Amino acid sequence: MTRSPGARGMAASEKSAPRIPAEKDAIGVIGLGTMGSAMAANLIKAGIKVHGFDIVAAQREELKKSGGMPATSVAAVAQLAEMLLTSLPSSDALHAVAEELHGKGRVVMETSTLPIEDKERARDTLAKKGIVLLDCPLSGTGAQARAKDLVVFASGDEAGFRKAESFMPGFSRAHYYLGEFGNGSKMKFVANLLVAIHNVSAAEAFALGMKAGLDPKTIYDVIANSAGASRMFQVRGPQMVANDYDDATISVQLFQKDMKIIGDFAARQGVATPLFNTSAMIYNAAMAQGHGAEDTAAVCAVLEALSGIKR
Amino acid sequence: MTRSPGARGMAASEKSAPRIPAEKDAIGVIGLGTMGSAMAANLIKAGIKVHGFDIVAAQREELKKSGGMPATSVAAVAQLAEMLLTSLPSSDALHAVAEELHGKGRVVMETSTLPIEDKERARDTLAKKGIVLLDCPLSGTGAQARAKDLVVFASGDEAGFRKAESFMPGFSRAHYYLGEFGNGSKMKFVANLLVAIHNVSAAEAFALGMKAGLDPKTIYDVIANSAGASRMFQVRGPQMVANDYDDATISVQLFQKDMKIIGDFAARQGVATPLFNTSAMIYNAAMAQGHGAEDTAAVCAVLEALSGIKR
Amino acid sequence: MTRSPGARGMAASEKSAPRIPAEKDAIGVIGLGTMGSAMAANLIKAGIKVHGFDIVAAQREELKKSGGMPATSVAAVAQLAEMLLTSLPSSDALHAVAEELHGKGRVVMETSTLPIEDKERARDTLAKKGIVLLDCPLSGTGAQARAKDLVVFASGDEAGFRKAESFMPGFSRAHYYLGEFGNGSKMKFVANLLVAIHNVSAAEAFALGMKAGLDPKTIYDVIANSAGASRMFQVRGPQMVANDYDDATISVQLFQKDMKIIGDFAARQGVATPLFNTSAMIYNAAMAQGHGAEDTAAVCAVLEALSGIKR
Amino acid sequence: MTRSPGARGMAASEKSAPRIPAEKDAIGVIGLGTMGSAMAANLIKAGIKVHGFDIVAAQREELKKSGGMPATSVAAVAQLAEMLLTSLPSSDALHAVAEELHGKGRVVMETSTLPIEDKERARDTLAKKGIVLLDCPLSGTGAQARAKDLVVFASGDEAGFRKAESFMPGFSRAHYYLGEFGNGSKMKFVANLLVAIHNVSAAEAFALGMKAGLDPKTIYDVIANSAGASRMFQVRGPQMVANDYDDATISVQLFQKDMKIIGDFAARQGVATPLFNTSAMIYNAAMAQGHGAEDTAAVCAVLEALSGIKR
Repeated sequence: MTRSPGARGMAASEKSAPRIPAEKDAIGVIGLGTMGSAMAANLIKAGIKVHGFDIVAAQREELKKSGGMPATSVAAVAQLAEMLLTSLPSSDALHAVAEELHGKGRVVMETSTLPIEDKERARDTLAKKGIVLLDCPLSGTGAQARAKDLVVFASGDEAGFRKAESFMPGFSRAHYYLGEFGNGSKMKFVANLLVAIHNVSAAEAFALGMKAGLDPKTIYDVIANSAGASRMFQVRGPQMVANDYDDATISVQLFQKDMKIIGDFAARQGVATPLFNTSAMIYNAAMAQGHGAEDTAAVCAVLEALSGIKR
Repeated sequence: MTRSPGARGMAASEKSAPRIPAEKDAIGVIGLGTMGSAMAANLIKAGIKVHGFDIVAAQREELKKSGGMPATSVAAVAQLAEMLLTSLPSSDALHAVAEELHGKGRVVMETSTLPIEDKERARDTLAKKGIVLLDCPLSGTGAQARAKDLVVFASGDEAGFRKAESFMPGFSRAHYYLGEFGNGSKMKFVANLLVAIHNVSAAEAFALGMKAGLDPKTIYDVIANSAGASRMFQVRGPQMVANDYDDATISVQLFQKDMKIIGDFAARQGVATPLFNTSAMIYNAAMAQGHGAEDTAAVCAVLEALSGIKR
Repeated sequence: MTRSPGARGMAASEKSAPRIPAEKDAIGVIGLGTMGSAMAANLIKAGIKVHGFDIVAAQREELKKSGGMPATSVAAVAQLAEMLLTSLPSSDALHAVAEELHGKGRVVMETSTLPIEDKERARDTLAKKGIVLLDCPLSGTGAQARAKDLVVFASGDEAGFRKAESFMPGFSRAHYYLGEFGNGSKMKFVANLLVAIHNVSAAEAFALGMKAGLDPKTIYDVIANSAGASRMFQVRGPQMVANDYDDATISVQLFQKDMKIIGDFAARQGVATPLFNTSAMIYNAAMAQGHGAEDTAAVCAVLEALSGIKR
Repeated sequence: MTRSPGARGMAASEKSAPRIPAEKDAIGVIGLGTMGSAMAANLIKAGIKVHGFDIVAAQREELKKSGGMPATSVAAVAQLAEMLLTSLPSSDALHAVAEELHGKGRVVMETSTLPIEDKERARDTLAKKGIVLLDCPLSGTGAQARAKDLVVFASGDEAGFRKAESFMPGFSRAHYYLGEFGNGSKMKFVANLLVAIHNVSAAEAFALGMKAGLDPKTIYDVIANSAGASRMFQVRGPQMVANDYDDATISVQLFQKDMKIIGDFAARQGVATPLFNTSAMIYNAAMAQGHGAEDTAAVCAVLEALSGIKR
């Protein structure tokens, strides 16, 4: 593992193909949703030239306002920059992008959270065209992406990583190189397994404390400073105290995709995950009770209802 | 709630009974086990005169070496100090101490983790003799007690708390006044519920990551700095990485007492605690598989065996 | 193990103490609640003379109407019959009865579901007075008791069992002799563990099927005849279909006592019971949501609410 | 719902297309694995002419020995019989068969356990060719298929069902018509959810009883006759008593496919299934501990290891 909070300044020496005079110091961001647009904005602020594409015109327009250069297609982005970053909503989107991309020597930081099998398939599709795909999922929410508070779990071809590394401080606070392709995703699943559990455990703590007569704000203040603390307790706790889940950093509905990926991964690896499985049913309940569009912290409402708590 | 990291210096004005010329600035510590002896030592270092008693002679001897004054009985301690602190292994021990204690005006900080019903009974026993019992459980392990890294969850008679408060910085880094008697214990149960879950979730994360081929040390380094982090992951993780649970800050066996108290409390309050219940069976398995004397972090070995992980 | 659906007719040859001319063919029933009164009534129907006592006068009156002979105290019952049967609501009640009982040579079938430790203590108390206590919990509800559809899990002193055995067909459809004292209770806990789980699994099946659009009555008819069937599904299913839990064969509140006994037993034995622990939180939720007085089948309402099912 | 254990003898009046003189009283069985070959054999015994196809030559040969007529392809089978039955290992196999099938007026009883979405897709593919696909999953194992102890959960086009119904007694002991397409699968998932849970609950009961010192054979005999009984306890219990899981009626590995289908179904429906989720991790552990090829009853070995039970 290499953790490099190091400064910008890559001496990329590889020769680009003559027909594609892509810029070495530019980056092409494909997918300008919550995460992609936040990373693009930070890269621009860091002084990097950012080309970008999204199928939604409004997102391309926003990139322009941030100081980036919207392109007309995935292929066009790849003509303009040697370094690419993808931030995509689904495996289908990834496969479509992999089909469209061309340009020998390109390196793609694939930052989405998707099944490893799909990333491997995209890697193989691109390898045939001389393009290196790196598996680089991110730890952090949309809010953290805006604050450049992301951590990159990079994995895959090491030479490719060395080229990509210098761009990482432009959109993250830290990055790790975790070895062979897929290890980044595996680490992300491990982190997300804990995120899934700790969000529910925080809710369980509030439910127990409130039912016993303790004030939720007091619970938050005392526990956040105790041996029972977790990053999720600290981050999601205030929403649980306020009993207001409208401002979703990640919605229950969206998180269901991650839950399924982790569950399938654990089953395929042959790992028994008792707490994760128990958490999963609480998220299903949250969906069923109409909290799909709310922040995942809404599992607190599910546990309160379960224990007949009214406030 | 009042959080007072405030300085020593209580202006206690109440008149002590003539026949019991107890010292106002001294403290009497009853129960000199891992926690009690550590607190006594820190109080002595803070310049406070400490009388103490334990039924084990060796513990009394140790108090002497630390600069404290061993007494010959529970009753003797109460003759010598107006402020008392109990650190006891069981409800039976608490009831026995409550029977023996005498001395109108005494205030007792009861720091043990015990069922609230037992603390209430002891409070009532003592109230008849003019003694105030405060419910003051502690957040922190034996190691934290030695490092004065404890947090006091104080509750009960407010006037009593005001007298006791000035002694708290002598053995803790922070203290909270949580209101009516029992609230301290309730908050402790909430904290311990999370400790119980997060210890198992840490193990579950290691099991998933290791089975998928990630190195445990790398898992620790990356996750401890991620959204999946918890205080327990950070504290117990190194033992899980090393696969060595011999140095128990709290043993599985001892923790079973706490598990039972929390489980009974949740059932009595009518609270559904899905993750805690799932955790409980892992601790039972740890007992069954011979990890009783090891640190609670040994649940990692249980989850590894469950998923057929060998290292 | 001996299973004896055998006929009445014991040739009890032991000599009773001269001062206590108790009848050998009579039985004394102590505790005339739902279970005790049903067993007494069936014993009477079977032609056996039944003396009985309950602290509630109305229950004694009912015994009289059924053809039994109410006595004025526990001690009085033991004067009148050599064979005794206890059916008690709590460990405290058992200890009180054990204190009051006298009469060398008496054999007591203790049919309550209580912690083994308490039954052992009562056995020891009685042994000093020459009385044999058998641990004989029952499988079956109050309704089954009235229909003589009980199964006796007998254990303890074998000679004592031989004396008691001939009375068992008078109030049960089958009985097993399971060996040393406590084995009856252990088997009862195993059976109850399954009852606890299968009641919840039935509810889970109804919730899944109903949410998917299947009619509850159809679910019942099809599943009761399938590989997914359980005795609990068959027995509690109709209440779940009707969504009416008012007619409690055993209430959630009462069952909480059994849940606690099993949970404590499993923890003490060092057995991990994942499904039981998960079930336990559903019963806690049932209490919290106001189903305490309803039949345990009301866990179906809890699972429906959890999944946002309305009907 | 219609339950028709009715006799053979359908007066099918629909006119077959002139170019395809398929027999109305014959049936074509596509997929001759464990289930398909057993159903084919029973249909033959019931006096029905059976054409059949399997991609494995040995399976076609076996059909011949049983008195059936192996065909050379899926298409060939559909030329020879108007009524078809599919028993397939995967969704891919179903889609391939749907592509190959031709013959207006054909009715296909699709008996496999597969995601409803895949069955719907196959139904739509076939509808364009004038073929009716019925969703008809089966309750029962391979052993039950051989003993004609299957139950058919039929759903879909009612006219199609009326044609198919008369064939059902030829390979099953009972059948239900459950209404719109997919309801058969939904009911199958509900049944399998219970099968999954009750297999684990049986194991949990054995683990608790054995650890407490009870003999497994005694546990089986007593509990199978108690309120704790389930069909799974009765069916899988003997393997658990014998501690021998080599003779798999359904292997853990194969059952993982069913577990995933149910889990995905519950998540999509928005249903919280606490016991099923907890069971799932035990099956993952069974895979991880090397029980993949054994009967699902091997979860007992997992729970014994978890609780440190040796025998």
